[in-house]
Amino acid sequence: MPKVGMGPIRREQICRAAAAVISREGFAGATMRSVAEAAGVSTGMLNHYFANRQEMLTEALVYVSERSQERYEKAIEGLPPGVARLEALLDSVLAEDPESIETWRVWINASGEAVRAPLLRRTIEERLSDWFGLVQQALEGLVDGDPDGVPWTWRIDAMLTGLAIQALTSEADLNGRKIREAVVRMVTAGV
Amino acid sequence: MPKVGMGPIRREQICRAAAAVISREGFAGATMRSVAEAAGVSTGMLNHYFANRQEMLTEALVYVSERSQERYEKAIEGLPPGVARLEALLDSVLAEDPESIETWRVWINASGEAVRAPLLRRTIEERLSDWFGLVQQALEGLVDGDPDGVPWTWRIDAMLTGLAIQALTSEADLNGRKIREAVVRMVTAGV
Repeated sequence: MPKVGMGPIRREQICRAAAAVISREGFAGATMRSVAEAAGVSTGMLNHYFANRQEMLTEALVYVSERSQERYEKAIEGLPPGVARLEALLDSVLAEDPESIETWRVWINASGEAVRAPLLRRTIEERLSDWFGLVQQALEGLVDGDPDGVPWTWRIDAMLTGLAIQALTSEADLNGRKIREAVVRMVTAGV
Repeated sequence: MPKVGMGPIRREQICRAAAAVISREGFAGATMRSVAEAAGVSTGMLNHYFANRQEMLTEALVYVSERSQERYEKAIEGLPPGVARLEALLDSVLAEDPESIETWRVWINASGEAVRAPLLRRTIEERLSDWFGLVQQALEGLVDGDPDGVPWTWRIDAMLTGLAIQALTSEADLNGRKIREAVVRMVTAGV
């Protein structure tokens, strides 16, 4: 039985397990049963914390997103504006440790899912707004204005996401360093 | 009962139905039963044409991909090298008719799926190689060399896919014209 005060820890434990299952099996594979098993709790426990499967999956996505957002913020903390700050952010986003890979896999899966799930789209939208804020901070002093109606933040996110998808879903000879260079090049050339 | 010689037509009919179901429900929702229903055939008929569900879904992806590849090829046929040829390709890729939207939705879903399905990754790899060939053709005379280890074709695909994902999975104020301009800008600036 969960003790009083254990709620937040247990919630986080379940979200962490759900993220691992989504990363491995996709959203469709992340059922109440498979997540309960991965978290080492009963499905009854899951029902205690989450109204339904949709809510659990959405919270798992928020958990993954906040976890990485904190990491990214720390990576550029105290750095002055300039290319080095942008590179520090990109290095953090493109890290190849298991947690980072899991984050990317969950996000790419979420995109596939969001195409047909309006509720998930709203969550993604909210999370993107924090992420875009961070990108904006990393761009300080490097660019001015948004030349053609597609803001810098969106284009940087697009290039990053597009190349990460290639890296994770094909045999393309791509790694974090190459992706970082492609993005930095785009920014320093002001295009 | 299928008549002799009806095979290819029936196969295509099933692939077309499978694409519609994937677009609407994702790969997980595209079961033998739901595809049979959408195609207006029996599941027995599906089993006659495809060894299993995986094979049916892979063929559906190839069908969608070849269908759009033909469209794209026609769009630039006869155009001389230059920006207009690139723009014609992008306009064709970014068209907003139902078939084009379906193609994007199937592809974005396929990326989510490919993260964990090596077989699908190989199919995607093969299809990308045709697509990259076409992008290369559209770039003729516009760029030289691949500056930083990430080929032009990959970067263009990344920017396109990344922005299309934003357009389809968020409320971002993006449309085909804006995405086209962002990509053309990248190319004409040589970055």
